[in-house]
Amino acid sequence: MHRFFASDNGSGIHPNILEALTKANVGHTKGYGYDEFTRRAEADFSALFGDHIQVFFVYSGTGANVLSLQSCLQSFEAVVCSDTAHIYTDETGAPEYNLGVKLIALPSVDGKISVDQLDRILIGRGVEHHVQPKVISLTQSTEYGTIYSLEEVKAISAFCRQHDLYLHMDGARIANALASLNCSPNAFFSEAGVDILSFGGTKNGMLMGEAVVVFREELAKTMKYRRKQSLQLYSKMRFMSAQFSAYFHDGLWLDLARHSNEMARYLADELHSLGEQVRITRPVEANGVFCIFPNGIEEELMERFPFYYWNEEDREIRLMCSWDTTTADIDAFVEATRRLMPK
Amino acid sequence: MHRFFASDNGSGIHPNILEALTKANVGHTKGYGYDEFTRRAEADFSALFGDHIQVFFVYSGTGANVLSLQSCLQSFEAVVCSDTAHIYTDETGAPEYNLGVKLIALPSVDGKISVDQLDRILIGRGVEHHVQPKVISLTQSTEYGTIYSLEEVKAISAFCRQHDLYLHMDGARIANALASLNCSPNAFFSEAGVDILSFGGTKNGMLMGEAVVVFREELAKTMKYRRKQSLQLYSKMRFMSAQFSAYFHDGLWLDLARHSNEMARYLADELHSLGEQVRITRPVEANGVFCIFPNGIEEELMERFPFYYWNEEDREIRLMCSWDTTTADIDAFVEATRRLMPK
Amino acid sequence: MHRFFASDNGSGIHPNILEALTKANVGHTKGYGYDEFTRRAEADFSALFGDHIQVFFVYSGTGANVLSLQSCLQSFEAVVCSDTAHIYTDETGAPEYNLGVKLIALPSVDGKISVDQLDRILIGRGVEHHVQPKVISLTQSTEYGTIYSLEEVKAISAFCRQHDLYLHMDGARIANALASLNCSPNAFFSEAGVDILSFGGTKNGMLMGEAVVVFREELAKTMKYRRKQSLQLYSKMRFMSAQFSAYFHDGLWLDLARHSNEMARYLADELHSLGEQVRITRPVEANGVFCIFPNGIEEELMERFPFYYWNEEDREIRLMCSWDTTTADIDAFVEATRRLMPK
Amino acid sequence: MHRFFASDNGSGIHPNILEALTKANVGHTKGYGYDEFTRRAEADFSALFGDHIQVFFVYSGTGANVLSLQSCLQSFEAVVCSDTAHIYTDETGAPEYNLGVKLIALPSVDGKISVDQLDRILIGRGVEHHVQPKVISLTQSTEYGTIYSLEEVKAISAFCRQHDLYLHMDGARIANALASLNCSPNAFFSEAGVDILSFGGTKNGMLMGEAVVVFREELAKTMKYRRKQSLQLYSKMRFMSAQFSAYFHDGLWLDLARHSNEMARYLADELHSLGEQVRITRPVEANGVFCIFPNGIEEELMERFPFYYWNEEDREIRLMCSWDTTTADIDAFVEATRRLMPK
Repeated sequence: MHRFFASDNGSGIHPNILEALTKANVGHTKGYGYDEFTRRAEADFSALFGDHIQVFFVYSGTGANVLSLQSCLQSFEAVVCSDTAHIYTDETGAPEYNLGVKLIALPSVDGKISVDQLDRILIGRGVEHHVQPKVISLTQSTEYGTIYSLEEVKAISAFCRQHDLYLHMDGARIANALASLNCSPNAFFSEAGVDILSFGGTKNGMLMGEAVVVFREELAKTMKYRRKQSLQLYSKMRFMSAQFSAYFHDGLWLDLARHSNEMARYLADELHSLGEQVRITRPVEANGVFCIFPNGIEEELMERFPFYYWNEEDREIRLMCSWDTTTADIDAFVEATRRLMPK
Repeated sequence: MHRFFASDNGSGIHPNILEALTKANVGHTKGYGYDEFTRRAEADFSALFGDHIQVFFVYSGTGANVLSLQSCLQSFEAVVCSDTAHIYTDETGAPEYNLGVKLIALPSVDGKISVDQLDRILIGRGVEHHVQPKVISLTQSTEYGTIYSLEEVKAISAFCRQHDLYLHMDGARIANALASLNCSPNAFFSEAGVDILSFGGTKNGMLMGEAVVVFREELAKTMKYRRKQSLQLYSKMRFMSAQFSAYFHDGLWLDLARHSNEMARYLADELHSLGEQVRITRPVEANGVFCIFPNGIEEELMERFPFYYWNEEDREIRLMCSWDTTTADIDAFVEATRRLMPK
Repeated sequence: MHRFFASDNGSGIHPNILEALTKANVGHTKGYGYDEFTRRAEADFSALFGDHIQVFFVYSGTGANVLSLQSCLQSFEAVVCSDTAHIYTDETGAPEYNLGVKLIALPSVDGKISVDQLDRILIGRGVEHHVQPKVISLTQSTEYGTIYSLEEVKAISAFCRQHDLYLHMDGARIANALASLNCSPNAFFSEAGVDILSFGGTKNGMLMGEAVVVFREELAKTMKYRRKQSLQLYSKMRFMSAQFSAYFHDGLWLDLARHSNEMARYLADELHSLGEQVRITRPVEANGVFCIFPNGIEEELMERFPFYYWNEEDREIRLMCSWDTTTADIDAFVEATRRLMPK
Repeated sequence: MHRFFASDNGSGIHPNILEALTKANVGHTKGYGYDEFTRRAEADFSALFGDHIQVFFVYSGTGANVLSLQSCLQSFEAVVCSDTAHIYTDETGAPEYNLGVKLIALPSVDGKISVDQLDRILIGRGVEHHVQPKVISLTQSTEYGTIYSLEEVKAISAFCRQHDLYLHMDGARIANALASLNCSPNAFFSEAGVDILSFGGTKNGMLMGEAVVVFREELAKTMKYRRKQSLQLYSKMRFMSAQFSAYFHDGLWLDLARHSNEMARYLADELHSLGEQVRITRPVEANGVFCIFPNGIEEELMERFPFYYWNEEDREIRLMCSWDTTTADIDAFVEATRRLMPK
């Protein structure tokens, strides 16, 4: 099996992470996070995000999103997000199912929404016939591989403060975003005004590891019960916690993310060199490249190098780079593309 | 950290399982189970349980239970279970929360219910003011370390057939049960009349691995959507699937379960040798020993060898043995107990 | 159609109530409660229950219960109630379905639970594997036609205060209870420590009218949204509100309840006069009589005077008296019974 | 209180309906619909809609919608509707809350969607990451007072048949639609291919009366349980059933609807006569008129003749006519408008 571009979750486990599992595999510990490995991993999060945060480890990114939103919402309230948000399009209705709430999708540009769109969500406030928006959810980096600048996030969080809303960030690829912004988590989050963060590790070299990082104490109070009830409490927690510590050690996580970002940049540049027939459709700011190939050659390519359509109607495809993607992988792909190009 | 008796999820990962992770960590695969490792693990399940089954891998035991019950139930229907069932007492209301259904708990003896108790659940059938029982859920082995014989399960499944009910088995410790019954899964399940099984691996040497095994095709039809929606779809599935294959290879899983059962037997015998002051409260049929110590000495013991009260009012405690428990662990514990015993 | 004993909801509408509908049927009003009739009915509630209460009119008793409990609970919390409570046995799992919470049923005597049973619900507090009891729900009068004395309720509400629990009262028949206790609502509720009350009118002469009375401001804050979302907001509200005003006018509601209580007393006395073969099984304190007839003669009676089994296994039946039940109705029934009695 | 234009639920009860209540107020009946009045009303529905239908009476229009959709859907499936649909915008998220499903809103023209928009909802079919559309919901007449022709509905139901979807119709104002189409229910529904209908009476002269009419047997099978569980089962059902019989008697319902439609036509014509400064914004096909007034004079008008903005940003207002609206009401309103018009 060679490496391809379908998704960053098609990649493997970084050796340091596997090694951490082996090291943690000694004797017995208490389950459900009452162990030393978990204490250490929590301390690692505090070191990165600030002493005031609380962190809860969960199984999946969708789980992190559902738990995060649940902390912020009552059933008649609503989530406002981009119409391309993972929570809106790719979680099989998990937020609606688990929370019973409505998601209000705003039209987006390259996956992003902006503060200018938010005034209209306030229409109907206080009227009992309408759901009441309570959370803005941003994806960082977005489903289109773009990134909200710190200024953009701050503008939205200021709106949230002003109107008593919470700001959630879906950070399934937060490492890629921080690497791209060249910003430490502390530098970013001390300014950004994010209230609760879905922190992802699985797509960036971990076996499995996602977390909810809570920046406002009130949102953490009942999380431990909700995590269990929402099927997200891992019994042998030390084997997730130990991964997180290895993930953060010596900045491994940001190194891996930086690498996959660079690979995407390289892939975009190489595709660009094929000429105007290959159209790069979105800014390349993280680890994904979106493009449209000429003449439907993507169908042949897809068989050898699996990847997905992102907009079937436009034949726009998504190419994701991973922590383990190599320039050789990309060269092989671009060469194969070149051969299929119409003369 | 030494080994103790709090729970079988306090134990580590069997070396074969860890090795399987390393072997699976090569190149890229498609995510979400569309990979060769998963095909192989599914074939392993079919080899053990029969060609007609379908299997869905999930993160957690509570997840397996919720998904299993969800397949069988509409919201006005109900689950009938033992009043000691994990789904009833230890899942923070996850079935009620995720399914919106009522659980009807029957009084149990040593964790077990019997077919004689079931007639009364039929009162109110067809009356719209009452929930309609639709699933019987049995735990095998039970929360009290006891085991339903094949005959007992068959009597209950016959009742289910007669009255259009489904039979669910919570098999978080199914390996211990099969090892204790000295019965292959095929031999047991081809007779038992179970419709859907929560199959557990995490407590018996896996890093993480649970599954829903579906014996009736109708119950599997929408499972793939529900698994995703219920936050139980693992993206890097190969790393769970590869564990399952190693778990089944050469009967490892039953060997590990047999060992932990034997350790429980040994522990019970050793405690018994301390005299009548230590009261073993439940039949020891799987990997747990329940007992009451004299004079509250359990509180001192608990500090050195963590374990839990199971009935706080009676001071009944639970001692769980694991795949990695040794006679030396037990000897140390029994010796410590002996020293604390009143003369 | 003559009058019988199946349920107090088999009765008709009191003429004053019907007249109030006619009087309210003039011109247009705003919908959803933004009208003068509703203002007046709300003032009527305040006059009876105190200025600090808030009241929300809803369609059904189950709706009132669900909304009341919903105000008090998060999904991992639980309701503690009698094992005969309407919310537990007769609402088709509406609380579980609508709230996703567990109901914990305590064994009861003649439908009542007592403060002595409550200590054990505190076991497991703060442990994330278990649901967290948060509401005690009492039915007043109970499903067995018995009544909690003010002292009994106060003992339970004191427990609630001590342990940060809410006290809900299902008052589908609160009028019967107050009439029996000979107590005004203000006198009772200013002492009782009830936090939220399901107030019923439908069973006592209204066309349709139930309400949630909130004694603690915090529980009312989001009710208007929840009422709509839970399908309980009546658009032409004035036609419910006008009924409530007529219901309260000159103490009609308590007069009607007193009458049905007296009819139950009369019925019990008459049945008693038939000799020991008719066994009255519960104290007769409100408008229901529970009894067991000899030789299964209830089956013949049931055809002419519809009523229900309450415990099928014991052949215990329930006979409900209504605001419009007459001594003639009772005499006819008792006479019919007498004729069927074995010599 | 005079009559105004805020909503057709601001109107009163037709005298025949009130009279029916009085006539039904005799003696006792069994509750929950097991009475003769309900049998008769059900027969009335069958006479109008066909012998194969089943009908379930419920409290509210939102209740009818929620129950209808619930019959058609599993939690991972989705409803497709107009972005102006009541279920999408005006039910405080009741469908999401009660069913846990996603609603997919399509852009609409004057409140209507068309079959041409439906192909794209099929993208992602069979893929477990996406919700699976299963119901198309149409509002008839729409929230903008427009009407789907029989041909338009048939085109959509043919699409539904072809793609294994259900067709729901929100008929809160179905009488207005049938009156406008000059079509009997049988003539319309025997052709239309609607699977389940929310049938409204409250807005058209009833005290309270809504129903779910089921055209496909499979969708009715569990309705009785769901109706109770979803808080929609009225105990004193005869008092709703008797209204329905009066409502249908001698075609009263269609007469009332025809009248309110004519009043809307008259209102539109009169407003038109005020000149181009008053812009009628939607086709007037049922009982509502949408328009934009010059210079914001609507704010002054609103104080005397309550009505609502429908699009606050555009100052588009909605004027609803009722069964009891008179030409005098309209003349007074138009005269008041004329006086406020800028010269």
